[in-house]
Amino acid sequence: MSAGVITLTTDFGLADAYVGVMKGVILGVNPDARIIDLSHVIPAQDVVAAAFLLESAWRYFPAGSVHVVVVDPGVGTQRPRLCIERDGHRFVGPDNGCLAPALSDSLRPARRVGAAYAPAAVDLPADVTAHRLENAAYFGRNVSATFEGRDVFASVAAHLTLGVAPSALGPTATTVQALPAFRAPVTPAGVSGVVLSVDRFGNLISDVHLDQLGANPVVTVGSQSIVGVERTYGVSPGLKAVVGSSGYLEVAVAGGSAAATLGVGVGASVEVR
Amino acid sequence: MSAGVITLTTDFGLADAYVGVMKGVILGVNPDARIIDLSHVIPAQDVVAAAFLLESAWRYFPAGSVHVVVVDPGVGTQRPRLCIERDGHRFVGPDNGCLAPALSDSLRPARRVGAAYAPAAVDLPADVTAHRLENAAYFGRNVSATFEGRDVFASVAAHLTLGVAPSALGPTATTVQALPAFRAPVTPAGVSGVVLSVDRFGNLISDVHLDQLGANPVVTVGSQSIVGVERTYGVSPGLKAVVGSSGYLEVAVAGGSAAATLGVGVGASVEVR
Amino acid sequence: MSAGVITLTTDFGLADAYVGVMKGVILGVNPDARIIDLSHVIPAQDVVAAAFLLESAWRYFPAGSVHVVVVDPGVGTQRPRLCIERDGHRFVGPDNGCLAPALSDSLRPARRVGAAYAPAAVDLPADVTAHRLENAAYFGRNVSATFEGRDVFASVAAHLTLGVAPSALGPTATTVQALPAFRAPVTPAGVSGVVLSVDRFGNLISDVHLDQLGANPVVTVGSQSIVGVERTYGVSPGLKAVVGSSGYLEVAVAGGSAAATLGVGVGASVEVR
Repeated sequence: MSAGVITLTTDFGLADAYVGVMKGVILGVNPDARIIDLSHVIPAQDVVAAAFLLESAWRYFPAGSVHVVVVDPGVGTQRPRLCIERDGHRFVGPDNGCLAPALSDSLRPARRVGAAYAPAAVDLPADVTAHRLENAAYFGRNVSATFEGRDVFASVAAHLTLGVAPSALGPTATTVQALPAFRAPVTPAGVSGVVLSVDRFGNLISDVHLDQLGANPVVTVGSQSIVGVERTYGVSPGLKAVVGSSGYLEVAVAGGSAAATLGVGVGASVEVR
Repeated sequence: MSAGVITLTTDFGLADAYVGVMKGVILGVNPDARIIDLSHVIPAQDVVAAAFLLESAWRYFPAGSVHVVVVDPGVGTQRPRLCIERDGHRFVGPDNGCLAPALSDSLRPARRVGAAYAPAAVDLPADVTAHRLENAAYFGRNVSATFEGRDVFASVAAHLTLGVAPSALGPTATTVQALPAFRAPVTPAGVSGVVLSVDRFGNLISDVHLDQLGANPVVTVGSQSIVGVERTYGVSPGLKAVVGSSGYLEVAVAGGSAAATLGVGVGASVEVR
Repeated sequence: MSAGVITLTTDFGLADAYVGVMKGVILGVNPDARIIDLSHVIPAQDVVAAAFLLESAWRYFPAGSVHVVVVDPGVGTQRPRLCIERDGHRFVGPDNGCLAPALSDSLRPARRVGAAYAPAAVDLPADVTAHRLENAAYFGRNVSATFEGRDVFASVAAHLTLGVAPSALGPTATTVQALPAFRAPVTPAGVSGVVLSVDRFGNLISDVHLDQLGANPVVTVGSQSIVGVERTYGVSPGLKAVVGSSGYLEVAVAGGSAAATLGVGVGASVEVR
């Protein structure tokens, strides 16, 4: 099952050697590991952005993959470090909510309250396995207080691809930090979404999921309303609503940028009626 | 022959997970595929820029490589999807001109008319093999209308590296979209080039090819004329003309940026006399 | 020992195909090479920035790794090209100082004079092995004067991972360009550091090394003084001094940017008393 695949999601950027060094550590432990970058330009210390990106990506990797997330404002402090298993995948990173996709929606708070996705502790049932990373045998030789991505997470992930059992990494975690499920709250008037991400094309990606859309929805963002949801970005001009490739409602402009056209970005309201 | 190498050229950017997800799909099909990024910051939906970049790159990869280009304004619409073979390489992407380097210059319109490289349909001779991607057995499980890079092109490319024959992918294509050969028009007064790309150093890369240069050329760009073509970027100050590493005439400034010095960019005229 | 790992450090940027083409050349020579990007956005032609980045990274790779640096204002000119060996690692690039981390501090000028790290020739003792890259049998088929990263360095690095001995590459080099050791000068008043790098978090990374810090240091940068050095970036507000993951003194702001807070960047003075 173990595919030897490790994905990396960080806020380290592409200019510095931080990401390359993590890969060096991985190859020192498992020379055959396959390392895939998901993103290294997560907004600095934005745990929610990291989790939303990982949510859209992890299912497309082979079973046995290890997904490392290092968006870690608390690096070097006492916050726990985790390995969580789900559906044959392993998720490794700090216990601050960035690993939320490792928890099925049924384990997470059902809906955000207010516009922001705030981390909160949840109790895990016995059949969900999460372990704290405490066994230094699987860490690098010297563990710094400023770069656990290199000294802890990369090293542990590489050992996992060699067949180390998560239970060898440390004690079971019964409570972990989670984010609410990425589903907009439902109100009597409709669904109150927010923009969670703006992609390179200027598409506004909301937290309104496909399964929250009724027939003939009207989508309002900024001062504009859009009637109906289209199948493709298409080529006709003007704003349109589309269900994007991850199952979330997007507002787009064919051949242009909805973000620029509307002058809105992450955090903007997307109301569906 | 099959090297298991897949190159990726897209306009997806580096912030989102789109590229990483394509790689996950590839590794799910062929865990041993070697995936190389050519560029993911092609200007959004700029088919010509993608083709010009690929033109400079593909010959440096081993025979058997699969070159995937996803610059695809028409994603999800009825435009065909192609696999074209050339000199032991396979080229996979939408049929919109971005795969033009898969066609030798003799198959493509000889020269652009006007400043822009516009896609146009060309008829293929019987000895050039191109196939439409229609056999869903080689696609992902669910094919979205918004992300064929993930659901079609990545999956097909991975199957090709496993030895699937292009003829298994779908029917033969006899007509495909092509771009004119990347050669500036010749006029009675000389060669009328345009800048097709500006690299990170500010070098202005034109569509005037080495084989279009006579002895002692005079190169005019913006309000400046440069006498002669040099062998290296060198270290002496001032504007110079150089034949770049892909065989195209460049205008450069040693230790500086020709683009900034001249205040010009893509689309600027480069006249050679 | 040979791990087949090749790291790449360049100023080529991520938009163009230059880096991808180097990887194509490598895979054409050694289809099993593992290629890791350290950075491709080194400031253009900034040899010192490349060397400082490599200094922080190379020790985290397995023995046998080949570290290629192509920051090369003199490409195509007569400056030598080198392979230097150190502690089981090989360093490949132009002889302009960018390979300085291949030389232990004892071989390099002990301290910079003035604020800048300037390359200077040093004589190598007999037990340090450095070779000039002159044997064209290990180059690409055609060597351009404008892209030796592709035609020389990538090809040579790949051959090294196949077991080619450095001595086969060309004659021994007895004098090479080096940079002073990355250690700030010590003055009667303290240690006179400069900022060598600013990372994505706005941390100001100086050339004051951990081993140059006494007890209870006071760090002055811009108009601000900081008393004491902390173990982590932490979460309390305000400026702090931290020993970063590479052993160098950094000035940081938890959850913010020291560079933005202080309005300073590379080259700023960091005085320690």
